[in-house]
Parts: sequence; structure tokens; C-alpha cells
Amino acid sequence: MTNTIRVEDMQPIARGAAMLGTGGGGDPHLGRLLAEAALREHGDVELVALADLPDDAVVVPVAMMGAPTVMVEKLPTVEQLEGAVRSICTYLGVTPTHIGCMEAGGVNSTLPVVAAAKLGLPLLDADGMGRAFPELQMVLPTLVGARATPMSITDEKGNSGVLDTVDNHWAERIARSVTIDMGCSAMVSLYVMTGAVAKAGMVPATLSLCRELGELAAPGHAGAVSAVVERLGGRQVFVGKVVDVQRRTVTGFARGDAEIQGLDECAGSTGRLRFQNEHIIVEVDDELQVTAPDLIIVLDAETGEPITTEGMRFGHRVRVIAAPCDERWHSPEGIALVGPRYFGYDTDPLRWHGKAGDA
Amino acid sequence: MTNTIRVEDMQPIARGAAMLGTGGGGDPHLGRLLAEAALREHGDVELVALADLPDDAVVVPVAMMGAPTVMVEKLPTVEQLEGAVRSICTYLGVTPTHIGCMEAGGVNSTLPVVAAAKLGLPLLDADGMGRAFPELQMVLPTLVGARATPMSITDEKGNSGVLDTVDNHWAERIARSVTIDMGCSAMVSLYVMTGAVAKAGMVPATLSLCRELGELAAPGHAGAVSAVVERLGGRQVFVGKVVDVQRRTVTGFARGDAEIQGLDECAGSTGRLRFQNEHIIVEVDDELQVTAPDLIIVLDAETGEPITTEGMRFGHRVRVIAAPCDERWHSPEGIALVGPRYFGYDTDPLRWHGKAGDA
Repeated sequence: MTNTIRVEDMQPIARGAAMLGTGGGGDPHLGRLLAEAALREHGDVELVALADLPDDAVVVPVAMMGAPTVMVEKLPTVEQLEGAVRSICTYLGVTPTHIGCMEAGGVNSTLPVVAAAKLGLPLLDADGMGRAFPELQMVLPTLVGARATPMSITDEKGNSGVLDTVDNHWAERIARSVTIDMGCSAMVSLYVMTGAVAKAGMVPATLSLCRELGELAAPGHAGAVSAVVERLGGRQVFVGKVVDVQRRTVTGFARGDAEIQGLDECAGSTGRLRFQNEHIIVEVDDELQVTAPDLIIVLDAETGEPITTEGMRFGHRVRVIAAPCDERWHSPEGIALVGPRYFGYDTDPLRWHGKAGDA
Repeated sequence: MTNTIRVEDMQPIARGAAMLGTGGGGDPHLGRLLAEAALREHGDVELVALADLPDDAVVVPVAMMGAPTVMVEKLPTVEQLEGAVRSICTYLGVTPTHIGCMEAGGVNSTLPVVAAAKLGLPLLDADGMGRAFPELQMVLPTLVGARATPMSITDEKGNSGVLDTVDNHWAERIARSVTIDMGCSAMVSLYVMTGAVAKAGMVPATLSLCRELGELAAPGHAGAVSAVVERLGGRQVFVGKVVDVQRRTVTGFARGDAEIQGLDECAGSTGRLRFQNEHIIVEVDDELQVTAPDLIIVLDAETGEPITTEGMRFGHRVRVIAAPCDERWHSPEGIALVGPRYFGYDTDPLRWHGKAGDA
């Protein structure tokens, strides 16, 4: 079955990606505009299912690295994205067969579309995490031994680099510093992998899922929130009004928390979201409800429009929904990479069904 | 005339390099030990005069980047040096014909000997500045348009990178961040240049000069200080006892200043040295005497042994001598790169003859 991404798909993909972004991952609206322009100029992009990928395929993922609070002011360019892909392929001496996506949540769902359109390559319908996470080693391919490096990094001024590190944590550390020098946002091409590794490590069909979620929550669609909840196999955790948001940009990340005053069925209760680029924890009346790696998604209470952590404002009426992550994230290795303790919260992760401590 | 570097040359080279290091550039003693081991294992290194270099030679300089205060605790390895050279040559697709030295002052005079011995390549008898300076764009080849990048950077853990930046200041900025991540000291291979560019931009015969200065100041050599002063065409600025040293490591640099109580002909006066890795300014009784880019060198008052900024201690009896830098540093472009204002001191550079403001 042929599956393509056309200009008109970018609006739902961006909306669905903002949901999987769990509050972070950068505003996909900006990537959507770039992708629409690239699709208009270069034509549709073929979306290839993970199962259809040849084992010897050369998958070259591309992504933006940096702080979402900066991304909204400093747009990437098509040349920068193309430069990142070309630079790593030249360094490795490989010819890419497919563009890949490492993070279906947020802007990084849309930027691979730009690169695929510009380079005339098919795009793999998969991603590295099934959501968004703030650091580059936080992808399921890390769990099957895939290496982030050699990776390329480029800025809009023309600076670029290729890094080759001893592990994916070192890749994160050094690339983060370079990103900060480059103005807190940079384009990276990393985790270049064969089709066989992609099939072992990636999460299937997540770009299609973005599109589907976006269509379910199309503007004016009654029951958008419950349709999204049902599609994700999730549940509503809280409904209320945002009454306080604290955020600060620390070492390249947007950290903070938000307080929500309960409404309707949650009247009299207080919800609290804690985030580091993405929502990591949601509490109701000081009791943990859901933690990373499961998905915590904030939607406009009426329209179902996803709200990013940098977009949250006093007075917003929101529904906080949650959904299970890819099951591999709940392995001990997965929890070590992306559990609440990694983000500095002194708590075991909750399993999706709600009991603590059995991850 | 064939000129070689043998094991027994390393002691004088290291001593002379510490003089040209003008207090910084890293303690060459450590590089000397590595170079002696490499020369013992791989044989003598041929030293090629700048004038004898073919125009189409491929000169590959290698250096250590980082804070001298850290260098003394974190030795580089031969593999790291070799890795830096191989990495940039592979990236550029070139075969090196000569190893180069960018900084004759300090440890960076000795590390190219290690690389040349290990790789079996001749070493160019020249450097990029005729002294030591703390940032990588501060070399005379910058003034003739030579590019620092593409450059490689490696650490002792096995992390490496290749950077390609829009100018040499960006190379410094990004490489400095990577160096800090790598533990405040890293090996770099940069300013890969043809023989023609080397002849246009490098300072000739500075490694030979290091050896000659080191021989003049050999242990037990009476009149060492005046012999060195004469060879450099310099003068003694101050003699006294170190009574206070303030130093701090800031953004990867060793900054500070030292107060010297005058003795002998300087009795009753107070000398002050201001340094950022290297000595930038010397004042006597609050009056400027010498400034960068001219050379400010601190020697043990009796033995003539050079003293680095990190080696200065209360009670040291020292002679502060000064010598003219390569004349090209006094051009407006040179002063913009390495004049006192660049280092944060609100003063015009003094010309060597002592009058202010006519640089």
C-alpha cells in the first residue's frame, strides 16, 4: 500500500505531533510551515512502513536539538537540514535510502518531512520513542545498541560539526554544548542505521498516528478529546484552569511546573504538571497520577487543541490526558534512561495501570 | 643542512618553550616526557626549515587545547594526538607531509614532536605565533586568511569531533565548549595548510629558537638570564620577590595576577603581572611597562629557569624580562586579535621601544 504525505496532511500531522510531544518537543507549527513549503516545491513524500523496510536500507534521521523556548524565535532553514544530512552521509561514505524521524512528538515529526521532500527520499513511518523526550540518548534504538554518532550538527550561520563519541550520553553532552554555542537550537543528523536496526529499535507507524490524531482533533470536531483518548488507549486525568506556570530555561532546557485548579468533575482538587521540555509528572492533590515514560498530554478543554508547555497561560481551561508509552520503555533499561529519577524527581515510575514501583 | 630533534634535545626545547610560553601555554615538562618516550621508540624527528618547505606540502598542526591548570593533572596520550591528526586527514582526504606547531610557547612546542615521531613525519621548524596565546584564532596565519577549520578534537576517553566553522572566532568558541565537556583539555588538529600558506603566515625557526634558549639557560649556566635577554633582543623589566598570586579558572582559562616586591636595583618598587593563561601586562609602581603582544617572561632570578603562571609561588625570587614579538602582531589586525583590550584591559598596547599608543 502506498502512503504519501501531501501538503494537506501537514496540519493534522502537526496537531497530532503536538499531542505526542506531551507538552514539549518544540512547536510543530513552525516545522509544518517549512514542510508545506518543501512539499509544494518538491512534491509529495512517500511514507514507508517499518515492516516494508529492506534490511540493508540506510536510514538517516534528522532532528532539531535545543530548547523549545528558543525554537519559536529561531527558525531552522531547509539548507541547514539538508546540510546536516549531507554532512553525515559524506562523513560516513553512505548514500541514504530513507529519511528517519527520531521523535514523533513536536517539531521533530515535521522536520524529517522537509528533508525528505528536499532530498527526494522516502520517509520511514516510525520514530525512535513514540513521543518526545528532551535528550538525544532517550530513544529506543539506544536500548538495542544503536549509536547516536557519528552525528552531524549545523547552525543557520554555516557552522557545522561531526561528533563521534564513546556512547550516546556523551553524544548528548557534547552536542548539547555545541547547540548552546549555536544559539540554543541546531539541526542534527544522528542514529544513521540500517533497515534491520530500525526494525529492531524503532516504534512503528507513529507518523501515521500523528496524522490520525490530528484528524480526530480537527477544528470543530465535537468529542475530539474523547476520540483522542480512545485512539491512544488512554484516560482523562484532570480537567481545570491553569492558575500558575513557572518556567525557566536551564542549561538549554525549559524546566518548570504548572498548577491547575479543578473544574467540573475535578472541582475542589488541584492538579500539578512538572515538566522538563516535556511533561514528566502529573499529580492531583499531591498524589502521583502518571509519570514518564507514559504520555501526559494537555489539551484545550473545548477544542482538543494540544497545548505545549511554553504555550500554557494563566486562565487556559485544559484537559490533562494520559496514555501508555511503548512497552519497551518500562524495561529496567528504559526506566534508567527516561524514568522520573533521571529527571530529578525522587519517585519510582508508575505503571500505566496506576500501581507504583513494579516497573 | 639536516636538522633533527633527538631525545637529548627535548630538555632544552622544553625549557626554551616555557620561556616563549610567557607564563602560559601549559607546562612543557609533561610534553617533554611524552616526546622523549616517542623519540626513543620511533627515532629522531627531522626538523624542516620554513624556507625549505615545498609550496604543495600538506602541513598538519597538532596542539593541546584547554586550561594549563588542568593540563598538569590530565596528561594527553600518544593515541589521542595521533587520532587528532588521522581524523582531520581522513575528513579532508589528504595525506600529511609535515607536522606543524601552532604555538612554540609551552606544551604545544613539544606535542607536535610526539605526533611527528609516532607518525614518522618531518616537523616544520616554525609556529603560528612565536610565543603562546590563549585562544585558537590568535595565530598569524589568521591574518593571512588561513582557516582553523575543518579541525579535529579528541579526548582521552575516545570521544572525537570535526568542526567546520564560518571563521576562526567561531572555531574557538565551539571548540572551547567541547574542550570543557572533554574535561578542560583536549587534543586538536587544526589550520591544515599548504606549504605556500605556511610560508606566508608562520613564524620561522621558533622550535630551533626554543632549543637554543634552553641551552643558553641550561642548569648551572652562569649568566643564563642575560644570555637569554640578549638572544631575544629583550630587556630586564623587574627583579623581586613574589608576595601575592591570585588565580582563578574562568570559562576554561587560568586568569589572575601576581604582585612582586622589588629587590636589588628595583628595591622599593612594586611589580604587577596580569595574566590570562599567559602574561598580558607588566606594571611597575602602577605604570605600564610592557603589554601583549610583546613577550613577558618570568625567570628564576638565580637559575634562569622559566616559571609558569601556575608555578608562581609566594617567596619566588624572579626576574621579569620582556622581548619584542613578531612585528606582524603590531599591525592593526594583529592588535585586534591579541592586544590588551581583547583581554579586557583598558589600555592601548605599548610598542616594544616603550612609547604608548603608536601601534
